[in-house]
Amino acid sequence: MQYGKLYGVGVGTGSPDLMTLRAVQVLQSVDVIVIPNSSKYLRSVAWRIAGPAVGPAPENQERLNLLFPMTKDPEIIGPAWATALEEIGQRLEGGKSVAFITEGDPMFFSTYIYLHREAQARWPGIEVEVVPAVSSYTAVPSVIGSPKADGQERVAVVPASYGLEDLPAIFALFDTVLLMKVSSIMPELVDILEREGLLERAVYVSKATMEGQKIITDLKSIKNDKCDKCDYFSMVMVKRGKRSGVLFGESKAGEALATS
Amino acid sequence: MQYGKLYGVGVGTGSPDLMTLRAVQVLQSVDVIVIPNSSKYLRSVAWRIAGPAVGPAPENQERLNLLFPMTKDPEIIGPAWATALEEIGQRLEGGKSVAFITEGDPMFFSTYIYLHREAQARWPGIEVEVVPAVSSYTAVPSVIGSPKADGQERVAVVPASYGLEDLPAIFALFDTVLLMKVSSIMPELVDILEREGLLERAVYVSKATMEGQKIITDLKSIKNDKCDKCDYFSMVMVKRGKRSGVLFGESKAGEALATS
Repeated sequence: MQYGKLYGVGVGTGSPDLMTLRAVQVLQSVDVIVIPNSSKYLRSVAWRIAGPAVGPAPENQERLNLLFPMTKDPEIIGPAWATALEEIGQRLEGGKSVAFITEGDPMFFSTYIYLHREAQARWPGIEVEVVPAVSSYTAVPSVIGSPKADGQERVAVVPASYGLEDLPAIFALFDTVLLMKVSSIMPELVDILEREGLLERAVYVSKATMEGQKIITDLKSIKNDKCDKCDYFSMVMVKRGKRSGVLFGESKAGEALATS
Repeated sequence: MQYGKLYGVGVGTGSPDLMTLRAVQVLQSVDVIVIPNSSKYLRSVAWRIAGPAVGPAPENQERLNLLFPMTKDPEIIGPAWATALEEIGQRLEGGKSVAFITEGDPMFFSTYIYLHREAQARWPGIEVEVVPAVSSYTAVPSVIGSPKADGQERVAVVPASYGLEDLPAIFALFDTVLLMKVSSIMPELVDILEREGLLERAVYVSKATMEGQKIITDLKSIKNDKCDKCDYFSMVMVKRGKRSGVLFGESKAGEALATS
């Protein structure tokens, strides 16, 4: 069977002009754009980003809104995916090209990953293309003005809501640590950073590049602002910078954080 | 003094259409584009990427080629930077906006980082904007079709040419490890991967998204292809995937690598 082509298209971190030329071109030319929604009542974040750059639908393009509730409960997410795969499958089997959009990059903590993993099993031989995008861990260093890595430096990207006990080992091995999903564990995280002597070298960013972007350097001031639902858009960057480049001494490490 | 605005603009990993809309817009509107060249005899890689998307220079736009030899010798790189900072400074002091372009993302192992760090000291109060871009560690998972992280997974990005002895500890703590600058240490790296039982879970990619892109799954076949000068464009991705999402069992980890 000749299936339509499947695209996983990253639309970047939040600002429509951080989309790639390729993402815009693909979304303007496919037969179907799949727009994932986390709730019936909120507009899709990915489409809020992509819509302005992509513009009105060309004739014959379908924009298919599907529901993926934000939950880890397999009893809820399982049936949602069953419906989604059937809807998407109908279009692919009809020879239509389908682009599934995601915030950030499609290969990094995205809803698309499940579709990507299922595709070859369900539609054998299907052509799949992933359009990479600017990801939150790339945008955060830009918005706070602090280089992520240089010289011999190592970078770790860690979902902080699991395995907090490994953080000291990770801080010892890495120069820059980007902690994702921090909102629900801020009290514990601030304690760990304080014990490790890294509180001054940590910066909190939420909604990087989006409207409402916040950059906070005094982490103690937000230690008790728990926010279980805003994880997706919050990150803490910790920069030790022990191994920066030949032109910089150790003393310069972290200076950008201190002044930004 | 009112300086012109300084931009660090990432042009992405190699394919011109992976530039962001913002990068193109900035490069089409600034007074000066600084184009870094690693040699007098080769065209700038960053400009080979950006040129096609940016197009011919608008009237009054200067395209300033500067030389940054690819070396760690401070006796060579120091004077090159002195010249570059003087040339760039003249334009900024004249109120001109200047965009310095880099392959990949400006905050990640780029020539721009040194300029970024020097800017506030040399031109106090200068406005600086960094335009983030698709980086090699983002593009590689897309081109090999293997998700970088999902669920509880952790990602490490490590320049492999330093501290190889730390790799076993890093493999134990992380699910996906992206090893950069691998070309000069392939024999040692293949030995380590074999000892760790990770050879089957490693993929080599060079020139991701560029013309001449190579994806090699049998790392032993290139173990002895040392290439000291092509480091910038080569990477090995190792995926253990122990902590993938709620919808995937452990057994599925790494399957995308095995089939791609």
